[in-house]
Amino acid sequence: MEKYQPLDPLVYPRFCGVRTFMRLPFAQNLKGIDFLVAGVPFDTGSTFRVGARFAPSAIRNASITSGIDYGDLIVVPGYIEESYKKIKEQVIPILEKGIIPVLLGGDHSITLAHLRAVFEKYGPVALIHFDAHTDTWDNYFGQNYTHGTQFRRVVEEGLILVDNSIQAGMRGSIYSKEDYLNVKDLGYEILTANKIRKLGIEETAKIIKDRVNNKKVFFSFDIDFLDPAYAPGTSYPECGGFSSFEALELVRHLQELDFIGFDLVEVLPPYDSGEITSILASTIVFEFISLIACKFKERKRKKLN
Amino acid sequence: MEKYQPLDPLVYPRFCGVRTFMRLPFAQNLKGIDFLVAGVPFDTGSTFRVGARFAPSAIRNASITSGIDYGDLIVVPGYIEESYKKIKEQVIPILEKGIIPVLLGGDHSITLAHLRAVFEKYGPVALIHFDAHTDTWDNYFGQNYTHGTQFRRVVEEGLILVDNSIQAGMRGSIYSKEDYLNVKDLGYEILTANKIRKLGIEETAKIIKDRVNNKKVFFSFDIDFLDPAYAPGTSYPECGGFSSFEALELVRHLQELDFIGFDLVEVLPPYDSGEITSILASTIVFEFISLIACKFKERKRKKLN
Amino acid sequence: MEKYQPLDPLVYPRFCGVRTFMRLPFAQNLKGIDFLVAGVPFDTGSTFRVGARFAPSAIRNASITSGIDYGDLIVVPGYIEESYKKIKEQVIPILEKGIIPVLLGGDHSITLAHLRAVFEKYGPVALIHFDAHTDTWDNYFGQNYTHGTQFRRVVEEGLILVDNSIQAGMRGSIYSKEDYLNVKDLGYEILTANKIRKLGIEETAKIIKDRVNNKKVFFSFDIDFLDPAYAPGTSYPECGGFSSFEALELVRHLQELDFIGFDLVEVLPPYDSGEITSILASTIVFEFISLIACKFKERKRKKLN
Amino acid sequence: MEKYQPLDPLVYPRFCGVRTFMRLPFAQNLKGIDFLVAGVPFDTGSTFRVGARFAPSAIRNASITSGIDYGDLIVVPGYIEESYKKIKEQVIPILEKGIIPVLLGGDHSITLAHLRAVFEKYGPVALIHFDAHTDTWDNYFGQNYTHGTQFRRVVEEGLILVDNSIQAGMRGSIYSKEDYLNVKDLGYEILTANKIRKLGIEETAKIIKDRVNNKKVFFSFDIDFLDPAYAPGTSYPECGGFSSFEALELVRHLQELDFIGFDLVEVLPPYDSGEITSILASTIVFEFISLIACKFKERKRKKLN
Amino acid sequence: MEKYQPLDPLVYPRFCGVRTFMRLPFAQNLKGIDFLVAGVPFDTGSTFRVGARFAPSAIRNASITSGIDYGDLIVVPGYIEESYKKIKEQVIPILEKGIIPVLLGGDHSITLAHLRAVFEKYGPVALIHFDAHTDTWDNYFGQNYTHGTQFRRVVEEGLILVDNSIQAGMRGSIYSKEDYLNVKDLGYEILTANKIRKLGIEETAKIIKDRVNNKKVFFSFDIDFLDPAYAPGTSYPECGGFSSFEALELVRHLQELDFIGFDLVEVLPPYDSGEITSILASTIVFEFISLIACKFKERKRKKLN
Amino acid sequence: MEKYQPLDPLVYPRFCGVRTFMRLPFAQNLKGIDFLVAGVPFDTGSTFRVGARFAPSAIRNASITSGIDYGDLIVVPGYIEESYKKIKEQVIPILEKGIIPVLLGGDHSITLAHLRAVFEKYGPVALIHFDAHTDTWDNYFGQNYTHGTQFRRVVEEGLILVDNSIQAGMRGSIYSKEDYLNVKDLGYEILTANKIRKLGIEETAKIIKDRVNNKKVFFSFDIDFLDPAYAPGTSYPECGGFSSFEALELVRHLQELDFIGFDLVEVLPPYDSGEITSILASTIVFEFISLIACKFKERKRKKLN
Repeated sequence: MEKYQPLDPLVYPRFCGVRTFMRLPFAQNLKGIDFLVAGVPFDTGSTFRVGARFAPSAIRNASITSGIDYGDLIVVPGYIEESYKKIKEQVIPILEKGIIPVLLGGDHSITLAHLRAVFEKYGPVALIHFDAHTDTWDNYFGQNYTHGTQFRRVVEEGLILVDNSIQAGMRGSIYSKEDYLNVKDLGYEILTANKIRKLGIEETAKIIKDRVNNKKVFFSFDIDFLDPAYAPGTSYPECGGFSSFEALELVRHLQELDFIGFDLVEVLPPYDSGEITSILASTIVFEFISLIACKFKERKRKKLN
Repeated sequence: MEKYQPLDPLVYPRFCGVRTFMRLPFAQNLKGIDFLVAGVPFDTGSTFRVGARFAPSAIRNASITSGIDYGDLIVVPGYIEESYKKIKEQVIPILEKGIIPVLLGGDHSITLAHLRAVFEKYGPVALIHFDAHTDTWDNYFGQNYTHGTQFRRVVEEGLILVDNSIQAGMRGSIYSKEDYLNVKDLGYEILTANKIRKLGIEETAKIIKDRVNNKKVFFSFDIDFLDPAYAPGTSYPECGGFSSFEALELVRHLQELDFIGFDLVEVLPPYDSGEITSILASTIVFEFISLIACKFKERKRKKLN
Repeated sequence: MEKYQPLDPLVYPRFCGVRTFMRLPFAQNLKGIDFLVAGVPFDTGSTFRVGARFAPSAIRNASITSGIDYGDLIVVPGYIEESYKKIKEQVIPILEKGIIPVLLGGDHSITLAHLRAVFEKYGPVALIHFDAHTDTWDNYFGQNYTHGTQFRRVVEEGLILVDNSIQAGMRGSIYSKEDYLNVKDLGYEILTANKIRKLGIEETAKIIKDRVNNKKVFFSFDIDFLDPAYAPGTSYPECGGFSSFEALELVRHLQELDFIGFDLVEVLPPYDSGEITSILASTIVFEFISLIACKFKERKRKKLN
Repeated sequence: MEKYQPLDPLVYPRFCGVRTFMRLPFAQNLKGIDFLVAGVPFDTGSTFRVGARFAPSAIRNASITSGIDYGDLIVVPGYIEESYKKIKEQVIPILEKGIIPVLLGGDHSITLAHLRAVFEKYGPVALIHFDAHTDTWDNYFGQNYTHGTQFRRVVEEGLILVDNSIQAGMRGSIYSKEDYLNVKDLGYEILTANKIRKLGIEETAKIIKDRVNNKKVFFSFDIDFLDPAYAPGTSYPECGGFSSFEALELVRHLQELDFIGFDLVEVLPPYDSGEITSILASTIVFEFISLIACKFKERKRKKLN
Repeated sequence: MEKYQPLDPLVYPRFCGVRTFMRLPFAQNLKGIDFLVAGVPFDTGSTFRVGARFAPSAIRNASITSGIDYGDLIVVPGYIEESYKKIKEQVIPILEKGIIPVLLGGDHSITLAHLRAVFEKYGPVALIHFDAHTDTWDNYFGQNYTHGTQFRRVVEEGLILVDNSIQAGMRGSIYSKEDYLNVKDLGYEILTANKIRKLGIEETAKIIKDRVNNKKVFFSFDIDFLDPAYAPGTSYPECGGFSSFEALELVRHLQELDFIGFDLVEVLPPYDSGEITSILASTIVFEFISLIACKFKERKRKKLN
Repeated sequence: MEKYQPLDPLVYPRFCGVRTFMRLPFAQNLKGIDFLVAGVPFDTGSTFRVGARFAPSAIRNASITSGIDYGDLIVVPGYIEESYKKIKEQVIPILEKGIIPVLLGGDHSITLAHLRAVFEKYGPVALIHFDAHTDTWDNYFGQNYTHGTQFRRVVEEGLILVDNSIQAGMRGSIYSKEDYLNVKDLGYEILTANKIRKLGIEETAKIIKDRVNNKKVFFSFDIDFLDPAYAPGTSYPECGGFSSFEALELVRHLQELDFIGFDLVEVLPPYDSGEITSILASTIVFEFISLIACKFKERKRKKLN
């Protein structure tokens, strides 16, 4: 899989070059590739801190290894529905070619647009959602589309197989018991942060994989799954979160699933310090790409047999 | 005018107390006052850096002297037109009582909503606009409402007396000569940064006052009128701007005008350093209040005679 | 308990409004309430880094949920004994009404003043003290009152029931074995960081509760109980501390105690990054308020039976 | 004057070595020297932002050229009067040897202690005071000793020749006309920022020198004389101040005076950015040392003739 | 000159896209273009602060307008002479095609390599050098190649027409009168910061143009020409420098010269705040490109006549 | 061991005094001491982020307890081989007197120079190497000497007893299985981060001690052994690392070994936040000194028996 190799940092210093993700070739044609990384610099859906529009650039700056970088999708700052429309229109042709998109948000509201595109290609899919919050409110300030409502919308719009979908990492003071019941009413399984700590990483991974049950699956990762000490640059930091080791370990345990799309959202460079959030985000995306590589390797192995 | 006195910092330490602007009493009734300060934490109209939603709080933190602080106007983050509607509805009752609002933005797009409210009370008014940019584009990304288009909209909607309106401080690489002609076609007088430097502060003030010509006047101040060295916390920093001394001096020279509204916009706390932008913003607002005090003093003096 | 509900962030954006703690109503009368939150912006007692005078404001900015916010107590910067006197005088009327004060320091020396007020109302009480340091030196630079001596003073002045008091979280290179013996000589039980790690959270909580033994209890929490990675904004950061999950978990396990006062001290905003220390402090205070809510609920339940 | 030469940065890299001021030899004996630099890391007198206790270290880090560095004077954090006593006791032996002390504050309240020591050696002296504020309040929070009252105290205690003393640089919103009259009542001449701008640098320098009139003179420099853009790291930043060029130019114009002491105060490293305040402070101190060198040169020249 | 137009920010948001300079097309072929921008992320020559290796990326991030961006030249971090060799080899083919390179440093030592390449194409050229320092030391720490020695080397190696070369902006405490004589001995004309202030911008520009006298000219701009308030992110900040207005104004006055190369050096992102240094650097480079555009326009105009 | 006592912070405030490590006496003679701390402000070997030249000063600023501080070793910024030569020449006389040097880097490439000096005195020694990376590449950009190649060089030059040497903490995305095999081919034992987590601290310490097997041992500690949340100020941050508690605990478990040298490298102050990296580095060095104290105590005890 030569295409996915990083530029050799032993030859070309890591700080050299126009910043693409992992210094992958920057390209906007879609021939002969298996995945691509693209930014979605959109934060109009954010109800608290903003600045996620600078995340794709910051994550690229922090990234260090390989694929193609597709640049950023065009959005319309200040206009949510127009942006959703544009995102969907840009993602569909990528999916049509069988390419797996890895989108760098942007606020979490973009996942709705992304899943609308996925639905056009694959119909409803399973969802793995890592986050400190469920993002299943009915509305915010009377509006349907924000970064706190999209995981209710995706159920209502029939975009996901909710019986194969699961949310993990929820915690924090703003939830009552009713909130979690609420999520279950929508049909999701939910693993709170407390529960994950009791289960341990391996058992948690097993539950997730059982839930997905070999369905095509979309993985949405909100950086606030991690504790603010590890990821200070985010919009709604929530104390009591996971360490980088725990998060990476959990992602690595999800290897055999049939992933068809990813996003990494809610990185806010203006609140980062020492670039640690961007570095961590870029490491998580690297693990996503490893999951893709594993999938294609497995597929190839099966073909050979 | 006892009401406008600050809390005595010789008795009550400056860092004590819930942060209201200049530690004015926080109040939400509108009886017996001449002006109020209110925040408009809105930045959905921003086409580049965001974070102005945190400006009212930061400017309050940095402010040091007196009035009532009305808190923040309610907005709908992510929804421009709904926000305009809400801002207008909240400002109208203030104006109806003859109170002069001093709004702390927020991105510059809020001035359109503010002027729509002003129009309901006073009809069209003169406009003084300090900024590095003219904000008179026809649209951004195909949309009418952003922080780069509002000063075309206010002309189109007939909200201002354009023959008595003037823009000052424009500079920067993104303008061609056509842009400035454009502004003149709309009917504005324009004083570029270069021209102001040639004229000097006193002559500049004279031109502005002549242009306004005793009409009721609205003063809109974009913090990027100042050089980024003095105001790093802003959305579109533009090099070659004014020093704090020059800006304050110019504001102080506008004393005899009949002001009926003010705003101070485009402060972005996440990009500030050592709070210098917020401190400067709060000093400018203090000068606004001095302009109001002068107006009422003058009026009282005239009544007595 | 309608009074303790937060403003609804689904209606009123979280960044809107004058900053009170959890956007509780700002009020300075003491009728009909069970607890209040008040700042004590005092750092004259600090022997190393200073800046805790800005902590109440920063913690308010970071807080997100409900009660009344009583504003800040008046202090006399630069004058320790005068400040103690003023703090005590302001806290006594609060306690007289049966209200539980939650004070936001300020440096840790304020606890002495707070406990002097508590003594006036309740006589000696039990003390739970979370900290990286014991703060039981005899004097600093020949002076009795600093943020390193107050927990010797409270014993000497008979303000606490030392046999029901316990210190937890101590670590760091500046202690010799003699120091800890010293603390025991004063009568405290001490749980060092190492010991807590061996015991685990549940066992630690059990030991604390057994020690308190149903006495009325005061909870003093120094933010440096946490590791500097989680709380960089503090005056004497000490490596090897607890994670936010561990700290919150431990606080939550202290539910059935008869709390009559709280403080959260040593937050230094000038050394914070991405506001993570303030956010964490505000989350801990939220847990304090939950402990109060539990206490009143329990009391009500008992009355009903 | 070999003793005052800096370490040669062409041989020994500028970032090498234990940080003394300008990498002067660190020494605590007082033989055979003409001046010394010493820190006074005291900020208990500060009524707003704190952190000046870290200024001597930060200014040393930023300094780049030569003398002896005497280390820091011992102070008692949290105790103003004890600190004044200690400062005075430590400065007297320096003055007794005819050495000119250059003190790095610390908050501005230390000047009172410094001038008390100067009085013991020389009796009353002239004062040049550069600052945004007059620091001549009667008291703060009912207390006599703070960084806002010391220039009233030095008059009351007869420490200065007020008829030969002058304040320069005052500006900002917290002064009424009465304040400045007040200062004149105390006997000072005052040059506000506005007046200095009208006079220009050369004329301003002439007025200062005329006022001092060959008396022995003490020079007290508050870093907030400069605009916050140039010196963000300070306790009471005041917009509309001077540029670094203007400040340095003015200091250089004061060459022929008979200086017997200096201080540079109110630098707050926690609020600095990119060390620009510390670098500027160290450059000003370098100019102080040039003024001393000029004085001794002049004296030598006179002896030879 | 369609090729040099920026992407239209009214269509494509300014924060979108892989970061090239002014979002020019990224390209590495050299056909049909008049100039290119390329980074030289090298800081091994720095004798004080380091980090200039991140400047090309930061300046790109801050740039906002148009050309081709050639990416970064390859360098060998830690190895000065090897890096010089590589830089020269990469610049020569650019010059051979008649393209004007605009290099984004990197520390100032890279100018030596750049001028060696220029010499191969054009022979000796005139030099305009804006800087706070002369960079004409004989050696640093016994080494010939550092960012403090290159402007002696270029004379010694015969790379420039020293009689048509000029240095401007020098100031600071580390120079004795001998230093400046020294520079004159090398043959340079020198305009110190003080002298420029006396001459004014227009007269200064005239002297520079007279000196260059229609020779082919190379323009080397060290960002520390500006005061640290305007450009905090640099390696040797020197107080008392120019404002952004003064610097931009001076550059704009150099329009009719026959430029054949440019560099902008000594930007250090890790010391920047609010990106103000990078934004200013990108604005200066934009002015460079305007100078190139003027040159080609003039040339075209002459051809037509 | 009176000499190793810290200045008493109960008498002399922690922020007072010229910054030496733990405020140990600054001295440059080598009589009558057992160890010394010295800085090596060198970062020319760094292939990614730079700024380690400021680490000795920052670690001193953050250190809090006692020995002699030898100042900084002289280096030649920009020249690797010359610097190695100078470091070696300066370390040899220290070792000759039986003194244990504790060097504060600097980038990790300095360990090669340090071990060359050690070899002169002791011949080959065992090596304990804590790091996220193995630093055993053959070359970087075709060069032998960088901070990524030194642990191959020390084997090739025969400076260490590779059979008694061990690397610990390796992790991160840039390694393939081949890399680790590679390290084993060189002869090292390697404990990856994953393996350490499985083994636990005590078992890990046991393996390290068994490997060293009473040989004289050199301890090289790269701060990136810790997770970026704990040590953001470093050159190649690698997610998924250890907490401060885990790292300190592991160091403390290495007590009975015969240490003859230490270094602590790759601290980068420009990327630190709230000084947490420097504080942690200074705490680790304090633990090094405790290991030395234990060694001498043990030796004394044996002599007595």
